[in-house]
Amino acid sequence: MNDNQRRIRVVQWGLGAMGQGVAKLILAKEGLELVGAIDINPELNGSDLGTLLGTEPSGVRISTDPASILDPEKVDVVTICTTSWVAKQLLDLKTILSAGVNVVSIAEEMAAPEAQNPELAAELNQLATANDVSIVGVGVNPGFVLDHLVVVLTAGSQTVTKIEASRVNDLSPYGVTVLQTQGVGTTPEEFAAGVADGSIVGHVGFPESVRLISDALGLGVDRVEQTIEPIVSSVRRQARDRVIEPGQVAGCKHSALGYRGDEVVIELIHPQQVSPEAEGQSTGDYVTIHGVPEITMSTGPEIAGGIATQGIAVNTIPRIFAATPGLKRIIDLPSPSALMGPSAYVRR
Amino acid sequence: MNDNQRRIRVVQWGLGAMGQGVAKLILAKEGLELVGAIDINPELNGSDLGTLLGTEPSGVRISTDPASILDPEKVDVVTICTTSWVAKQLLDLKTILSAGVNVVSIAEEMAAPEAQNPELAAELNQLATANDVSIVGVGVNPGFVLDHLVVVLTAGSQTVTKIEASRVNDLSPYGVTVLQTQGVGTTPEEFAAGVADGSIVGHVGFPESVRLISDALGLGVDRVEQTIEPIVSSVRRQARDRVIEPGQVAGCKHSALGYRGDEVVIELIHPQQVSPEAEGQSTGDYVTIHGVPEITMSTGPEIAGGIATQGIAVNTIPRIFAATPGLKRIIDLPSPSALMGPSAYVRR
Repeated sequence: MNDNQRRIRVVQWGLGAMGQGVAKLILAKEGLELVGAIDINPELNGSDLGTLLGTEPSGVRISTDPASILDPEKVDVVTICTTSWVAKQLLDLKTILSAGVNVVSIAEEMAAPEAQNPELAAELNQLATANDVSIVGVGVNPGFVLDHLVVVLTAGSQTVTKIEASRVNDLSPYGVTVLQTQGVGTTPEEFAAGVADGSIVGHVGFPESVRLISDALGLGVDRVEQTIEPIVSSVRRQARDRVIEPGQVAGCKHSALGYRGDEVVIELIHPQQVSPEAEGQSTGDYVTIHGVPEITMSTGPEIAGGIATQGIAVNTIPRIFAATPGLKRIIDLPSPSALMGPSAYVRR
Repeated sequence: MNDNQRRIRVVQWGLGAMGQGVAKLILAKEGLELVGAIDINPELNGSDLGTLLGTEPSGVRISTDPASILDPEKVDVVTICTTSWVAKQLLDLKTILSAGVNVVSIAEEMAAPEAQNPELAAELNQLATANDVSIVGVGVNPGFVLDHLVVVLTAGSQTVTKIEASRVNDLSPYGVTVLQTQGVGTTPEEFAAGVADGSIVGHVGFPESVRLISDALGLGVDRVEQTIEPIVSSVRRQARDRVIEPGQVAGCKHSALGYRGDEVVIELIHPQQVSPEAEGQSTGDYVTIHGVPEITMSTGPEIAGGIATQGIAVNTIPRIFAATPGLKRIIDLPSPSALMGPSAYVRR
């Protein structure tokens, strides 16, 4: 096996639900080799990753000490799944980059960190460049459905005047923690209070998605306005662990408008709720591109969120080797795609 | 204006319907500068391009002499729209590459020339690399709808077992030349004879689309089988210039199967006919990706063919500067996207 066919050596950092899914997927891919796992939980330190994953022994021991793992002679890429926020992930990202190792992050804000964290983005870009490695943020959304896919749909467009995209999903399978961030089960008054005090956040990633679209097309968006509204149910809806009664909030309709001057050129809508079908709304991803030609696209149901976030994290790993050093976004690289065979893993 | 903001200087080679559309679009884009136009027709030599385009004078004179135009100090990229076939375009492509100028071709076979012309592809790759320039083939199909878009839809896929995609379009707006290549208006017997003698060709580009998908995902397709069948109309259908009576052929159903061993992993279908709506079939692009997750996508109507081929040719121009030297395919580059402002034109 020559160097071009060598498997890419990956360390998984963060072993929550997403991180475990990414780790399992790395273990399943013939072109990837999971060579380490990092988590902050001291109870996991030293145990075999397979025990946590409920699989056979993996031969990978979980460590709470990144410094003992991040040897650029032994590790090509870290996939990190620890938080949604750039500021919260910054120290860990700097640890990885300083060690001379590439990074794929699923932190929502990392999909386009310059959108809300321009100074931190510049810092990460400098550090990655200085260490001759690349860092990129991806996820199902931001990072794919409401931005990258929209950008690709304009590949043949002669003119684009306005973009509208929405993603309608179903929170029924999720547990209480996720439901709380969307205000599920509150009264409209409690919902308003939760938005005000920051306990109801809605979707994380609209400024990043707007930035990705605007930068790729050159739409010149100079301002993003977001609104968060309760979706008040008029029927009884059943989530996995709780019931929503009529008059209660079934979810959160979060929207973003991207303005160029006074004109709205990007409109993104992401209503997240329990059982939208209960009131006749189908789940799916919907994109309309106004311009020449007019384009209308839909998926049905929506591209599955958790699965696709794990998938895109893993599928992006080989794309790191198509990148020049520095901070990259999905629009800067050849698109990730499903990794189904060794030929997709060639290191470039 | 510093060098990073300098407009990209483009020459349009080939001034048929597609080439004229590309030239008009280049003239309309603020980040691009049309600096020359080449055509084989001696009657056009020396005339202002605007006369041919029916626009105001462009200041660009049409030339039949490529050597007088292709100065790498004055030209960054040639967009070439002359033929569907690599072998027929080869000499012209070599002329451009040898002059040290980048190329975007809309020849269908150039979307993945290694699929049917591996020796010519190797020759083009060598010549481009030796001259430190890049060459890429694009178009609405192959090059976008039935391949690149499919690849991008798998960005978050954990597993892909089979891909099915179809593109249903309407030939009603096209003239007699296009209708003849699809056998429109023939009897079923005449259709079979036309396929046998090569006068009815159906769609050009299936081996290329299958190759792009298989290479991007690593699906390992080792054989492509194509079938061409007549679409016999059971109703009267009206094209722009002719009528199709019941019992006559309204178009051509062209399909391709991509096999890995005995297993079909890619199935592409492109029925091209006059007025599919006349028998209840909606025009559109339809993609189903079997795997984890299952993904179903549709556009309606189909992404407009001629418009999008012109669009993607122009939108790909800046992507040339993200490429290393050599022969590239759309899956090797950051996706082209609509060029709507100067920020999208930064030379990288």
